[in-house]
Amino acid sequence: MSVTAAAGFRAAGVAAGLKSSGALDVALIVNDGPLSAAAGVFTANRAKANPVLWSEQALAGGSARAVILNSGGANCFTGAFGFQTTHQTAERVAERLGIGAIEVQVCSTGLIGVGDETFRAGVLAGVERCADALRHDGGDDAGGLRAAEAIMTTDSVAKQALATGGGAGASWTVGGMAKGAGMLAPGLATMLVVLTTDVVAEADVLDRALRAATRVTFDRLDSDGCMSTNDTVLLLASGASGVEADEAELTAAVTAVCDDLADQLQRDAEGASHDITIEVRRAASEDDAVVVARSVARSNLFKAAVFGNDPNWGRVLAAIGTTDASFDPYAVDVAFNGVRVCHAGEPDRPREEVDLTPRATHILIDLFAGEAAASIRTNDLTHDYVHENSAYAS
Amino acid sequence: MSVTAAAGFRAAGVAAGLKSSGALDVALIVNDGPLSAAAGVFTANRAKANPVLWSEQALAGGSARAVILNSGGANCFTGAFGFQTTHQTAERVAERLGIGAIEVQVCSTGLIGVGDETFRAGVLAGVERCADALRHDGGDDAGGLRAAEAIMTTDSVAKQALATGGGAGASWTVGGMAKGAGMLAPGLATMLVVLTTDVVAEADVLDRALRAATRVTFDRLDSDGCMSTNDTVLLLASGASGVEADEAELTAAVTAVCDDLADQLQRDAEGASHDITIEVRRAASEDDAVVVARSVARSNLFKAAVFGNDPNWGRVLAAIGTTDASFDPYAVDVAFNGVRVCHAGEPDRPREEVDLTPRATHILIDLFAGEAAASIRTNDLTHDYVHENSAYAS
Repeated sequence: MSVTAAAGFRAAGVAAGLKSSGALDVALIVNDGPLSAAAGVFTANRAKANPVLWSEQALAGGSARAVILNSGGANCFTGAFGFQTTHQTAERVAERLGIGAIEVQVCSTGLIGVGDETFRAGVLAGVERCADALRHDGGDDAGGLRAAEAIMTTDSVAKQALATGGGAGASWTVGGMAKGAGMLAPGLATMLVVLTTDVVAEADVLDRALRAATRVTFDRLDSDGCMSTNDTVLLLASGASGVEADEAELTAAVTAVCDDLADQLQRDAEGASHDITIEVRRAASEDDAVVVARSVARSNLFKAAVFGNDPNWGRVLAAIGTTDASFDPYAVDVAFNGVRVCHAGEPDRPREEVDLTPRATHILIDLFAGEAAASIRTNDLTHDYVHENSAYAS
Repeated sequence: MSVTAAAGFRAAGVAAGLKSSGALDVALIVNDGPLSAAAGVFTANRAKANPVLWSEQALAGGSARAVILNSGGANCFTGAFGFQTTHQTAERVAERLGIGAIEVQVCSTGLIGVGDETFRAGVLAGVERCADALRHDGGDDAGGLRAAEAIMTTDSVAKQALATGGGAGASWTVGGMAKGAGMLAPGLATMLVVLTTDVVAEADVLDRALRAATRVTFDRLDSDGCMSTNDTVLLLASGASGVEADEAELTAAVTAVCDDLADQLQRDAEGASHDITIEVRRAASEDDAVVVARSVARSNLFKAAVFGNDPNWGRVLAAIGTTDASFDPYAVDVAFNGVRVCHAGEPDRPREEVDLTPRATHILIDLFAGEAAASIRTNDLTHDYVHENSAYAS
């Protein structure tokens, strides 16, 4: 149930003083092989943090032996000094593990603009402590849990997931961890996620499986419309199971783990009181369905209405009317939690019939324009969201 | 200082029971000529209210003699019955004024989905009362003020503006009124605005002047990113001054009135505690400047930070990094209220030097990419915004 669930992986999480609370803040994941195949997707934001700039380059060869992650500072917009910090971090991990720095992926999360000498010293101290911890108690599942805890910022819970594949006597595992509670909106990826598997697979297979999985999971999570500068999703394969991957089965397992983690991210979104699934049916294309669902997910008026348990379908129609998707706005049905409040662009069931008190909220939009469908996960706009983000201190 | 400031216009505002509070809710503006030239811009939302569908068609000939407006119901997504209500409203106004229905512009504002028989009866009663009021006390400025009050929904104040042009003995006037406090995001236009002038001008001149004015005023007001279904901006010319328009001067006067009204709309935005101007300088093009400024205006994290008086420049850079405008994200300067907190993509002055307690807030983003500039007006994301929009009742 963690990044160490798959054979061939060790993990550690330590406190290095980056968080003023003294909580865990640096994590290290090590792939002991025999394979070191890896794939990754990174934020589509052009404002990329230093660790993203490093990791994208380092992963070009499709290989990674370790991932070092820190909370307590994003190391983004910290200039040449910040990039040197990332580089030194990779070098220090490589030195302790006896591998090349190019084999080390680096991830950071926290406040943008934080990356001074104190930060650098903290991260490097964290590397040393992680390496020490791995030597003493590496390989147990507790290391995986501590790693998941060390990357939390405003997260209230550590997020881990697991899936298995293969047959009797030839099984393999995909495990994963994630952090993220705000700035959740998709580029190629969202937030920090590390997935591990012991299946035998080349980097190009991992890359296809990971992109297929993120496209329908993290890319369709849109908590607050704000794209991060540090988003990274990594998939590392150790091959330690000795079982060759069936690509379709691997893709399904990776997708299942990503879906589970995306669900956990949604449920832990900052200040949210509703987890909203916006399902669009009978769209002319899957892209249209995504565009329509996302337009609703980004309407502050819709999100505030859900917070107030108000099934305000007018705000749904006002939002989807701003898209260029193919449909007739006057032929649309909208249902809130199973009650069709708008039929063919006119009022239908009384809004009093809708119960929006449960946290899980389902909006169904039927476009009557084709056969495609897609869903976007989002959250409501609440007082707590405003409060947490008006006084943010990672 | 109202829609009746220009010679040739009369106005009335009455209570017709559409608002449960008993406040004014139906307004009528009449152009007594001699000209009836008119221009309008309407919401770019594909989900258009019935009055917008009517008015766009009716204005095709570039002529309008009257505008009837109601609050207490948007008459949007109310089907064929709703469109008939709009048509009947125009017919009733035409009958009372002795003009053609095609000469009547119709505007509605309030909740989407409201447009039943009670609504229709209320609007038609309002027409009668407005026509009666005009006969008794039309032409005084009080009628203009009552009209501005009758179109208020969550607005806390009536919004009016005035500009003059021409020389001594040959002057003319542009007056205007506006409503709007939420769902303020631009398409071609935003909210309900009626502008009147006594200048002598053809419809095509009015159209060019109006589009030039709205492009740099209402189109750059983006309070909450949510585009309305009912947005309408009308410009009516009576020609009663007898003075021919100089087009550049008319454009400047119309722009001044629109700018004044846009400022009033921003200052009255629902729940806002900061009026934020996001100014982008040294962009490669004006379009780039607008795109960059708007990306910041639509970042909930940025808007919540301003509410908390936090000069969180990282959220500014994270937002502009999502655009495809031409600039180097690592070469950008950002200043909050005159204090440059980010220089060349790195931390500059300490954030403690920034005072964000005043309501007027100025964000300056220097892209170092060209010579173009533009500003977007927006507001912060506050508890009151969430509260007002989670319990909306127009």
